[in-house]
Amino acid sequence: MPRIIYVNGQYQPYHQAQIHVEDRGFQFGDAIYEVVACLHGHLADERGHLDRLERSLSELRIDMPVSRESLRFLMRETLRRNKLTNAGIYIQISRGMARRDFKFPKADTPPTLVIIAFPINFDNHPYVEKGVRVKTLPDIRWPRRDIKTTLLFPQSWTKQIAIDEGYDEAWMVDSEGMVTEGTSCNAWILTKDNKLLTRPVSCDILKGITRTAIEKICAENDITIVEQAFSADEAYEAKEAFVSSATGFALPVIEIDDHKIGDGKRGAITKKIYEEYCAYAEGLRGEQVKWEAGL
Amino acid sequence: MPRIIYVNGQYQPYHQAQIHVEDRGFQFGDAIYEVVACLHGHLADERGHLDRLERSLSELRIDMPVSRESLRFLMRETLRRNKLTNAGIYIQISRGMARRDFKFPKADTPPTLVIIAFPINFDNHPYVEKGVRVKTLPDIRWPRRDIKTTLLFPQSWTKQIAIDEGYDEAWMVDSEGMVTEGTSCNAWILTKDNKLLTRPVSCDILKGITRTAIEKICAENDITIVEQAFSADEAYEAKEAFVSSATGFALPVIEIDDHKIGDGKRGAITKKIYEEYCAYAEGLRGEQVKWEAGL
Repeated sequence: MPRIIYVNGQYQPYHQAQIHVEDRGFQFGDAIYEVVACLHGHLADERGHLDRLERSLSELRIDMPVSRESLRFLMRETLRRNKLTNAGIYIQISRGMARRDFKFPKADTPPTLVIIAFPINFDNHPYVEKGVRVKTLPDIRWPRRDIKTTLLFPQSWTKQIAIDEGYDEAWMVDSEGMVTEGTSCNAWILTKDNKLLTRPVSCDILKGITRTAIEKICAENDITIVEQAFSADEAYEAKEAFVSSATGFALPVIEIDDHKIGDGKRGAITKKIYEEYCAYAEGLRGEQVKWEAGL
Repeated sequence: MPRIIYVNGQYQPYHQAQIHVEDRGFQFGDAIYEVVACLHGHLADERGHLDRLERSLSELRIDMPVSRESLRFLMRETLRRNKLTNAGIYIQISRGMARRDFKFPKADTPPTLVIIAFPINFDNHPYVEKGVRVKTLPDIRWPRRDIKTTLLFPQSWTKQIAIDEGYDEAWMVDSEGMVTEGTSCNAWILTKDNKLLTRPVSCDILKGITRTAIEKICAENDITIVEQAFSADEAYEAKEAFVSSATGFALPVIEIDDHKIGDGKRGAITKKIYEEYCAYAEGLRGEQVKWEAGL
């Protein structure tokens, strides 16, 4: 069955899901996005993702294309039409279509809204047990990484360089040698004295929604988080390391630049956080998708 | 008459010119572009633009979607179908369509090619006489400005801030206070001792094709160019200032941050360079578009 994609008011078969060549998202990278996980029929941290989506739009001065309630409905309807209960929901909003001009188009230009649902096998995620091998590379993004724009080529290029060298992911490093984050995930290390380090939020990194949930989980589980930047050298010496993201939750990092992390296997704290996050994501109330699993 | 746009092998009426929502250009800003002027039926500096287009593709590891000869034909055919002899030709090439993944798609993924021709009234260009009012603003782009990617939102945002404050254009300034370039043009000043300053090429700026032609013109006309970065303060004191670009050629800058430049009118050197560039652009051999003007 072909996948169905929502584009500007219509549900289109995959190959017919199109936007205009003069969409500002295509010509200028003038767009923002979010990815929300649907885990066993529950939308994980939906509120946090929609709050961040509205913040990104506000920073770029793009209007919400539909009301928040409508967007929540459209996300669910896109899942339903694709018969998905374990999925990622990709939402992209651009400033819309206009004759090419660096100047913003008229304020009443309708934004473009695209929603894509894609299956994820959370029960058999390839990296949960096996772990991720990470290469550190220079951070070559623009300075406003706190806005979730589609200016993603630097991240894509950086990840591809890591893959070409036999790694799974890259951690980006700033000009002072400190890790910012992964190409599409936040970076964490557990020091030998059991402090969980992650970089404090600023314009340098994206404020991960899963990162925020993990902070709550750690507070409830007596795991000490220190919001502090760390270097690659500090990461090499870590007891554990992991990456957090909307669809990976908390995936172990077992190697960084050929340095084995801990015993090279998923650590106890990483496992605990992963399991607690799954429980948290499924336990949220009022967020249940309105159909039976497996439909 | 609707405009005709070339998209991936087809000439489409304007409103039907579409690309897939999973085009890498839309989801990742994974694309490059060029703009070539067609002045009275002559393509200005076509070779330079196509050389730079091939270099940008090579840096991103995207294949040429068609041969260079075919691309030259398609540019002319797009002009012809739009009945244009004074125009800009916008060429965008993305890595093509693929299921969304930060990892690059398979190497045999066909790149997306879009060609748009739009009319320009070179004989009555609004800024040639009137001049451009410039505001300086921080340069918030990624570090690889030498590649002509569509990661253009930072430039668009910066220009819009300048426009909102009553200016026509922005000059971007690096962390050391030195001007890099305009949002879609190179920046030049003529000092009181008649040296024409422009920033040396590096990853910090785009190597303008028009900039290169102006270097030749200046050599032939005993105008001394010094490739040297300058600050906003130095620019305020300039005798003349201008911006160079593929479609504006050389437009006078008459005000920077409320500082009047020279006598606030187009200067003699700026005028000379503009006129010489027009003559140069029309005088290139073998580049003539194959139809009569006004057809």
